[in-house]
Amino acid sequence: MAKNILLLSFVALTCSYLALAYEPKPLQDFCVADSDSSGVYIYIYIYIYIYITRVNGLACKDPLMVQASDFSFSGLHITGNTSNAVGFSAEAVNVVQVPGLNTLGISMVRLDYAPWGTNPPHTHPRASEILTVVEGSLEVGFVTSNPENRLISKVLQKGDVFVFPVGLVHFQRNVGHGNSVAIAALSSQNPGTITIANAVFGSNAPIASDLLAKAFQVDKKIVDQIQWKF
Amino acid sequence: MAKNILLLSFVALTCSYLALAYEPKPLQDFCVADSDSSGVYIYIYIYIYIYITRVNGLACKDPLMVQASDFSFSGLHITGNTSNAVGFSAEAVNVVQVPGLNTLGISMVRLDYAPWGTNPPHTHPRASEILTVVEGSLEVGFVTSNPENRLISKVLQKGDVFVFPVGLVHFQRNVGHGNSVAIAALSSQNPGTITIANAVFGSNAPIASDLLAKAFQVDKKIVDQIQWKF
Amino acid sequence: MAKNILLLSFVALTCSYLALAYEPKPLQDFCVADSDSSGVYIYIYIYIYIYITRVNGLACKDPLMVQASDFSFSGLHITGNTSNAVGFSAEAVNVVQVPGLNTLGISMVRLDYAPWGTNPPHTHPRASEILTVVEGSLEVGFVTSNPENRLISKVLQKGDVFVFPVGLVHFQRNVGHGNSVAIAALSSQNPGTITIANAVFGSNAPIASDLLAKAFQVDKKIVDQIQWKF
Amino acid sequence: MAKNILLLSFVALTCSYLALAYEPKPLQDFCVADSDSSGVYIYIYIYIYIYITRVNGLACKDPLMVQASDFSFSGLHITGNTSNAVGFSAEAVNVVQVPGLNTLGISMVRLDYAPWGTNPPHTHPRASEILTVVEGSLEVGFVTSNPENRLISKVLQKGDVFVFPVGLVHFQRNVGHGNSVAIAALSSQNPGTITIANAVFGSNAPIASDLLAKAFQVDKKIVDQIQWKF
Amino acid sequence: MAKNILLLSFVALTCSYLALAYEPKPLQDFCVADSDSSGVYIYIYIYIYIYITRVNGLACKDPLMVQASDFSFSGLHITGNTSNAVGFSAEAVNVVQVPGLNTLGISMVRLDYAPWGTNPPHTHPRASEILTVVEGSLEVGFVTSNPENRLISKVLQKGDVFVFPVGLVHFQRNVGHGNSVAIAALSSQNPGTITIANAVFGSNAPIASDLLAKAFQVDKKIVDQIQWKF
Amino acid sequence: MAKNILLLSFVALTCSYLALAYEPKPLQDFCVADSDSSGVYIYIYIYIYIYITRVNGLACKDPLMVQASDFSFSGLHITGNTSNAVGFSAEAVNVVQVPGLNTLGISMVRLDYAPWGTNPPHTHPRASEILTVVEGSLEVGFVTSNPENRLISKVLQKGDVFVFPVGLVHFQRNVGHGNSVAIAALSSQNPGTITIANAVFGSNAPIASDLLAKAFQVDKKIVDQIQWKF
Repeated sequence: MAKNILLLSFVALTCSYLALAYEPKPLQDFCVADSDSSGVYIYIYIYIYIYITRVNGLACKDPLMVQASDFSFSGLHITGNTSNAVGFSAEAVNVVQVPGLNTLGISMVRLDYAPWGTNPPHTHPRASEILTVVEGSLEVGFVTSNPENRLISKVLQKGDVFVFPVGLVHFQRNVGHGNSVAIAALSSQNPGTITIANAVFGSNAPIASDLLAKAFQVDKKIVDQIQWKF
Repeated sequence: MAKNILLLSFVALTCSYLALAYEPKPLQDFCVADSDSSGVYIYIYIYIYIYITRVNGLACKDPLMVQASDFSFSGLHITGNTSNAVGFSAEAVNVVQVPGLNTLGISMVRLDYAPWGTNPPHTHPRASEILTVVEGSLEVGFVTSNPENRLISKVLQKGDVFVFPVGLVHFQRNVGHGNSVAIAALSSQNPGTITIANAVFGSNAPIASDLLAKAFQVDKKIVDQIQWKF
Repeated sequence: MAKNILLLSFVALTCSYLALAYEPKPLQDFCVADSDSSGVYIYIYIYIYIYITRVNGLACKDPLMVQASDFSFSGLHITGNTSNAVGFSAEAVNVVQVPGLNTLGISMVRLDYAPWGTNPPHTHPRASEILTVVEGSLEVGFVTSNPENRLISKVLQKGDVFVFPVGLVHFQRNVGHGNSVAIAALSSQNPGTITIANAVFGSNAPIASDLLAKAFQVDKKIVDQIQWKF
Repeated sequence: MAKNILLLSFVALTCSYLALAYEPKPLQDFCVADSDSSGVYIYIYIYIYIYITRVNGLACKDPLMVQASDFSFSGLHITGNTSNAVGFSAEAVNVVQVPGLNTLGISMVRLDYAPWGTNPPHTHPRASEILTVVEGSLEVGFVTSNPENRLISKVLQKGDVFVFPVGLVHFQRNVGHGNSVAIAALSSQNPGTITIANAVFGSNAPIASDLLAKAFQVDKKIVDQIQWKF
Repeated sequence: MAKNILLLSFVALTCSYLALAYEPKPLQDFCVADSDSSGVYIYIYIYIYIYITRVNGLACKDPLMVQASDFSFSGLHITGNTSNAVGFSAEAVNVVQVPGLNTLGISMVRLDYAPWGTNPPHTHPRASEILTVVEGSLEVGFVTSNPENRLISKVLQKGDVFVFPVGLVHFQRNVGHGNSVAIAALSSQNPGTITIANAVFGSNAPIASDLLAKAFQVDKKIVDQIQWKF
Repeated sequence: MAKNILLLSFVALTCSYLALAYEPKPLQDFCVADSDSSGVYIYIYIYIYIYITRVNGLACKDPLMVQASDFSFSGLHITGNTSNAVGFSAEAVNVVQVPGLNTLGISMVRLDYAPWGTNPPHTHPRASEILTVVEGSLEVGFVTSNPENRLISKVLQKGDVFVFPVGLVHFQRNVGHGNSVAIAALSSQNPGTITIANAVFGSNAPIASDLLAKAFQVDKKIVDQIQWKF
């Protein structure tokens, strides 16, 4: 029996990321994601975790055990650490932080930007985004699909709101003198993010550099150079 | 021809509220709600408005005419006026304020509360809600459906986040000493709101007071009294 | 092993209510809700129950074991017992009574009304309703959402049909001399019901009475009085 | 102008059947199907009809003009006329009879059966069905898809309920001594019906009889014979 | 323990057909159907299989174990064996052959037809179909629903494409001198098929022959004859 | 009147691209996209076009006028012209070529590759893709979302099939000695394509080159160089 428990625990862990990828309609008042794993329960929950993580969703906590804390989160007023290459940080409040978001199709995020800090071009495969500037000013934009590939961008000030349609490539950067802060909401409990540069030049394993050279119409050496950075 | 224009205009106006009630999936990069009505276009748009308002949606603006301003809004940093009976105000940013939200299934709202200001019990038929406290402190809660009708409530401080599942009766009130402010997002471009007291006691025409007396198990006089207030 | 079985059984039971809250599309010909638990199978099904009840749905019975009885129910011709405070009874035929309804998105209910019997104001978060009067006569109505809160009501006679749109507050009461009977169908296998009076004044724990006093613009004493009744 | 009106009217009429084929989610409290066409409005509505019938839905009546009668129907207590080849009649209450059903995803039907009257094998492409026997007794059944093609059938008595899953071939017939009556509900405002015999042997133009002879493994003469009947 | 494994294995097998009937939206990048069952894992997977097959879907393989081979299939260039009663064969590439199709809502099939080979009248309850002729020529057609039951048919040559709307009765047959080959795609990972002749005349148990005689307006003897063939 | 017609025609044309962006469920047997514009009808259809293109869909042709040709297309056996920068061509069969695909959620495409011809990294915001190699051999791959950004790739031979999950960055290139040909199907009548290089470096207006320089961690000169090419 013990061997099985170990084995099962291992599987549960390897699945823990996938466990967050879920976007259904609510099927009852709520379905609080279940993260209990203390004491004798651990044996049961391991089984549930295997199943849950393997059918793209999170288990519902026993409704009798649900508490207000399952629907809440603290700390969105705290400034994020932007001391990194792009001068940007994101504090997400999705189903990982708030299990009660499970099945509700919405989440929130706090975005901090150092001066000229940049949230680089990316897409959310599962959500549209609405953002409001709480502090500073941001240049924001998105690009439409083929064949137009039109850039729609604007500089936002404190109190301004902007919308990014689902699936389109978009970005923000701080164009003010001080730090900038934004609060954004996304139409998914787990929006997903594809950062273009990482997906194309930083994939693991790398995409053949001559293929990318042809796609981006640059010298193969430049592609190698970019790939080497990621 | 002129007679038709007048006639059509009239119809367009009578439909203008319904025109906002819409919740589809986006079917192209975006479908900016169309509010243009200048010059010779007026004749065309009148026709479109009739149709649009009558098939629960908003017309898409010609994509070649779409601008960044269609996706933005200004003023969410401005304090709302809470000098009213409940000491509460809401500044919504939905498809009415931001035509680019049309079809994207999300919206935002700024909530201001005077001391003890109350957002009374209500439901959103078409959206879940995620709320963060930007200033002050709020007591929030929602009630589950029959047969439990369980109250799940919590006092939130600055930076706290709370979630209200779709369709459930919920409320907030300011329990701090000064004003409170919250930013909330809803999983619909037009969430809809049913304020319980207004729908039950303030409907137009009124629901028979003896029926309500039986439902709420109070004296008919009390129902008359409450209805008279609404 | 035995200890585990006991433990698991306990969990299965605590979940049994949630197990009914489910509204998917059918994903095969049918997915008959599984309630078998006899003999050696009990060990397996306990595991399934845990999972099932925790991912808002009901397990599918092994299709080889499905019988016509899984799709049928008897007794909808029997008069319900209306000797209660509101003089009303409802006999539901949903996925609890007919496991074959699992995933099919529809259910039925027989409604009995004593003279002046009342089905008090309520909402169905997950279904629209269509009702036909089989005997007697009913006053029925629903109220639209903010800001109109318009009451749309009618007195129905035998053979009349009426529709209640999803999520709106609605009610019925018997305005005939004898008993009334109606057959209604709902667009969900588990429509859910929020009885306004119970959710607002009868919640457990109670909503702060001064909050309700402000919301309903009545004296706090009256709210206490109503809450005491529920 | 006059020439246009005539032309448009013609188009509106040719579309009137398709106008009923609609199954969306409600996007506001209600969207009452619009059938007004009196006086000066006729000019406007003709335009709307063209559009409506051509984008699979029904126009919404101006909400200010909606009345309780838009949500009701009378006469479901009246016995249907079963003096026909199969001894069966159906009185549907869908969006055609009750415009308020538009977008609500449910409808009702009264079924009358003469002794041995038969509702022949058919499918509903857009709805599951729940049926209750109000009078007499019915043999009912449905057949599962390939490869099983299993018949699941039962004889129902007064007060019995039975369910037919969406898309599956099903039938009912009266196996009592007198007439039988059933009330059924379907999970669509316009379920659609494909009567097998008519679709396969009665199509217009006919399917090549030697193709059907091979499909049904019968002599071509028999196919000709059956096709001749339809 | 061993007894349990045997028992569970048995259950897993009886469910294996149902395990393929699934049509969700993808909820993460992919959810590769899990068919691993080697070594110690077998004990775990048996539990998952029970659950999976019983909630209409396939388990997701651990994403860390996913390989390119999970998204691929070989052999669609191989001619199928058409030496059977109808001179037709279908080589499906759905979620059974390509586990990576799980949740993606699409599948492919190669169709081979001997001269005059026929794919008899059938419906796909869960998918529309698009077909292109790679070799030879095909007569294809579908029939609309009641009341029109209109046949829409065409003879296709190499390089022609044709579409069959979801749920409608349709067929193909080879009208060329040699063999014909088509590649078709369906809008479901598991479209499902109801072959009319088998469902109506070959059901198990049979539908009462006098009921079918009335439905098809033929002599009961002919129905018996057809049923005997199936 | 004449002035209006001209004006309306103009609007109809400007909308013609958007007119293709549509992905609903079918709401009747079929809704053939309407492209008729001959004779007196032109006046009517102009109105419909405005509406259609402006509510993300295509008008339905009058069902009485639908013909088999509305569901068919010819020429998918013809080799495409790959004499271009990437040595690749795509012949799409979607709702533009086959109006009968309107609302059916599926389409097809023939892909031709010169030796080393490349279909560069791109995403389909609205569809998964299944591809089979009809001639030659292809290296294919897709990259998963953050944080893994894992490349899953394979070399395919004639008769091999591969799947690309919805929304993920993917590519193909010919790694054989001669030309390669593939037939692919997509789970949308209008899948949409975002070619990464064009959207990021070829947008109109361009994204600020220093922003891209930071995002791709390359020298601003290189970004200018790439942007200049697009």
